[in-house]
Amino acid sequence: MAIGTLVLLRHGESVWNAQNLFTGWVDVALSDKGVAEAIRGGVLMREAGLLPDIVHTSLQRRAITTANLALDSADRHWIPVKRDWRLNERHYGALQGKNKKETLAQYGEEQFMLWRRSYDTPPPPIDKGSEFSQDTDPRYAHLGDAAPLTECLKDVVVRLVPYWETEIVPDLQAGKTVLVAAHGNSLRALVKHLEGISDEAIAGLNIPTGIPLRYDLDDSLKPLTLGGQYLDPAAAAAAISAVANQGR
Amino acid sequence: MAIGTLVLLRHGESVWNAQNLFTGWVDVALSDKGVAEAIRGGVLMREAGLLPDIVHTSLQRRAITTANLALDSADRHWIPVKRDWRLNERHYGALQGKNKKETLAQYGEEQFMLWRRSYDTPPPPIDKGSEFSQDTDPRYAHLGDAAPLTECLKDVVVRLVPYWETEIVPDLQAGKTVLVAAHGNSLRALVKHLEGISDEAIAGLNIPTGIPLRYDLDDSLKPLTLGGQYLDPAAAAAAISAVANQGR
Repeated sequence: MAIGTLVLLRHGESVWNAQNLFTGWVDVALSDKGVAEAIRGGVLMREAGLLPDIVHTSLQRRAITTANLALDSADRHWIPVKRDWRLNERHYGALQGKNKKETLAQYGEEQFMLWRRSYDTPPPPIDKGSEFSQDTDPRYAHLGDAAPLTECLKDVVVRLVPYWETEIVPDLQAGKTVLVAAHGNSLRALVKHLEGISDEAIAGLNIPTGIPLRYDLDDSLKPLTLGGQYLDPAAAAAAISAVANQGR
Repeated sequence: MAIGTLVLLRHGESVWNAQNLFTGWVDVALSDKGVAEAIRGGVLMREAGLLPDIVHTSLQRRAITTANLALDSADRHWIPVKRDWRLNERHYGALQGKNKKETLAQYGEEQFMLWRRSYDTPPPPIDKGSEFSQDTDPRYAHLGDAAPLTECLKDVVVRLVPYWETEIVPDLQAGKTVLVAAHGNSLRALVKHLEGISDEAIAGLNIPTGIPLRYDLDDSLKPLTLGGQYLDPAAAAAAISAVANQGR
């Protein structure tokens, strides 16, 4: 069986990343820096000859714009596109729209890190009708009561793995190079599943923005190289340590 | 049977439109003016409450970028996307890359207008391997010998109508609002089919760039209003007369 190549791309900096706010499902745009990151991500793919045959994105602007810009600069703007809410960022519940630093000060280090990095403790649910909720957003209307009001990383794994299995794996099994343009936590969930990372160890995994991460897979969809290969390893290493210090 | 709404959007000005070159299948980018047109097209849709549920584009950058920008400004960036070469611009054969004014001077008014506006006279075929041919372009590799080397408008109708019937009509019959982001001649071919315009009369139809054209259809897919409704009728009328004078 010919197995294709998986390429993961976390969206570039958003305007809320730049302001250090919890974003989750709030549909913010890329910052100017994020736009530049997305374009460079495409240049890295083109220079590496790593040319996607199909792209999967979330339903969120920052991932969609990242995919559009990266594919345009890789000269692959014309490939088929699939979008699905199951690639969305983790829903951050009542924390959406709140400043990370203020939240840390208000709730303390232990609670803050539990919400940010524990596997199975979601933040409090967001109130329906509140400024940063998505309960009237037409793109999620089909979910009805199944639409999340908060999520922990475990919840993201639970919704993402069926999408991986039914939508992404068939493309890989067809030998395609598959780009997944998504978010910090939906990509962490995917890598956890792909590499069999434990519920505890996943807390230590950060994926930098805008740097394509290549996974070559064997016949049983296991990575040939644990951790995959960033197309710019030095920039990835520098960014990973910066992400780990967010909110400080 | 609930019939949805069709919205046609011709891409904004490209860098080759601005230079008055025959473009055809050459994959040029939007000019700054074209980018602004695309964004405004999305604003017009949003202000009219005309919100696409799905978008169909060609495989060409100028239509894809137009769709991406328009949908982003309409807050509909997250809808499903389908792309197909059958929505591409007419292949302009050996004229691709040539200046329209110089071509007019070289070949004379009669031949020039025959190539530009006759229904069934294609320009000479492009040489394979020439600078502006697409014979090594991966996006058309699956077409093999069926890939055109030149096209008249009739050829565009012949390749476009099957796509309309198998891919677009089912979306309309499902009650969706369907955006088709494409090109001057692929949209003329579609309107010819939709309105039953004769082979002679289609020569007089020009579709302006960047202004969404709305068609409400009856159960048998016939337009309720001949000519459809531009979302900015005054700008459309002004642009139509300008397009008619291209190459002069």
